Amino acid sequence: MEFADRVVAAVRRKGNPVVVGIDPRPEELPPGFLDRFPADRGGVAEALKEFGRAVVDVAAPLAPLLKFQAAFYEAYGPEGMAALHATLEHARERDVLVILDGKRNDIGSTADAYARAYLGKEPVGGAYQSSWSADALTVNPYLGSDGVTPFVRIAAREKKGIFVLVRTSNASAREFQDLVCDGRPLYRHVAERLKEWGKGKEGAAGYNLVGAVVGATYPAELAELRSESPGILFLVPGYGAQGGEAKDIAAGFDADGLGALVNSSRGIAFAYNKPAYRDRFGDRWERAVEQALRDMIDDLAANTPAGKLRAD
Amino acid sequence: MEFADRVVAAVRRKGNPVVVGIDPRPEELPPGFLDRFPADRGGVAEALKEFGRAVVDVAAPLAPLLKFQAAFYEAYGPEGMAALHATLEHARERDVLVILDGKRNDIGSTADAYARAYLGKEPVGGAYQSSWSADALTVNPYLGSDGVTPFVRIAAREKKGIFVLVRTSNASAREFQDLVCDGRPLYRHVAERLKEWGKGKEGAAGYNLVGAVVGATYPAELAELRSESPGILFLVPGYGAQGGEAKDIAAGFDADGLGALVNSSRGIAFAYNKPAYRDRFGDRWERAVEQALRDMIDDLAANTPAGKLRAD
Repeated sequence: MEFADRVVAAVRRKGNPVVVGIDPRPEELPPGFLDRFPADRGGVAEALKEFGRAVVDVAAPLAPLLKFQAAFYEAYGPEGMAALHATLEHARERDVLVILDGKRNDIGSTADAYARAYLGKEPVGGAYQSSWSADALTVNPYLGSDGVTPFVRIAAREKKGIFVLVRTSNASAREFQDLVCDGRPLYRHVAERLKEWGKGKEGAAGYNLVGAVVGATYPAELAELRSESPGILFLVPGYGAQGGEAKDIAAGFDADGLGALVNSSRGIAFAYNKPAYRDRFGDRWERAVEQALRDMIDDLAANTPAGKLRAD
Repeated sequence: MEFADRVVAAVRRKGNPVVVGIDPRPEELPPGFLDRFPADRGGVAEALKEFGRAVVDVAAPLAPLLKFQAAFYEAYGPEGMAALHATLEHARERDVLVILDGKRNDIGSTADAYARAYLGKEPVGGAYQSSWSADALTVNPYLGSDGVTPFVRIAAREKKGIFVLVRTSNASAREFQDLVCDGRPLYRHVAERLKEWGKGKEGAAGYNLVGAVVGATYPAELAELRSESPGILFLVPGYGAQGGEAKDIAAGFDADGLGALVNSSRGIAFAYNKPAYRDRFGDRWERAVEQALRDMIDDLAANTPAGKLRAD
């Protein structure tokens, strides 16, 4: 099944559009968690792996997608990358789709190498093996078409997807992305190109394997892009910790409650650090993660068109 | 010593501004090279490591900088990343500076994680350890200041550097980078911000730890940026395989032959695949690599201000 159809099916089956982000900062692991592992790089990497697997186990039955932030694994060297690999394999055995948030970008055969690395297969001794098992990868568009189309081509072949940065959720996103060129801000130019890159790559449900990252923190831009870009899946970061609220995100959905995938990372995976959850669950940190996820699902259902997914 | 001063010292000591790129595509390894290793992912990774180390050994005595392309190591999973790590360690023992070409980008604490990963140190059991040993990292600016300044802050603390993509060497670089906003193309806006990001971070030789990637394939833009951005080190890809010639790059240097670092990747590391070198050196592939590097050094000396470095 095409990537976008798998996304739509997973969102419908789980009845919500939540992408649980796993950004394992060692300093935010549950109290005492790190102490169970050797005090070296391999030990920290092992802790990231155990933590990530536990979050996968809590989140996969409830959420349609998970998103792993590559930086926090790369931070711990080859051992950290082995932890990422093991965690992705663990997620692959669950009923959940996985986005690797690596914001990769390069040109020609180098972009090919990134795309094959995370979405495809590599030539190994006359056969082909996959190196990392993700269903989608985030991609930065600054290099233009020949920096993006290699990702599209390989994603299409492998029935995977990409999410191209269009309008990010950070405060200084405005600096370049909002510069007005030929009457439109830069991010609108990127959104237009995105339609070209995805041409002919729509799935049966009408959505494309080339999606867009559009931050929850800029509701007007989200609404505008939704109306300008039907058929483009939005990966929407910025809910929760970054200040985006459900009502800000509502305009990112289509009338059926599809089209927007809403990410929360530390708000869910580190929920046990928030007083409200800590008071309620104490050191049963997985319960705090689960409750925070359920609360987010309810919030989106009550305040966005994603509520329609539940009634189905 | 500050990063930019280390660069200037290395360029003066070696008498040339060449950055040897190591982009190990398995299909371009010397004939028979892969056959010496097991036909699995670990075997290919081991081959990339052996090849990379051999190129380091040939290049480090002659060139001031090496550049490793992360994608080709990521392509082979955790084993590939272990090969990258071992190759970087090997380079660190040589008299050469190392750029990791990862084009990383993200915001806030995620950008911090990337910067600490490649340029700094990670907290491990109450102490700090470095995970990957690079002297500089390439960074994509699309996210704006809060996607770049974390890299700058950590680079400054560690006496490392970054090279921000300004005007890339690929054909479709024009699509976004040349869009005219407020009377100037986007890449000029990026170049202006770059001066802010580097403010107060100049070394004794007048160059900054925040450098710029500016492709050799757009000579007019290179000349314009050189005159607009004194004190900014340019990492110049596109020489050779991508069609940039020495005369196109000449305007990227200052009057002393400094300020431009000229990269060639497959033109040097895979020189043995070119008929002229193959005919001359046969299966002594390291000799082909060395000769191609010497030829590039001579070409730049004859046709750019880098010739002054030799006379010093």
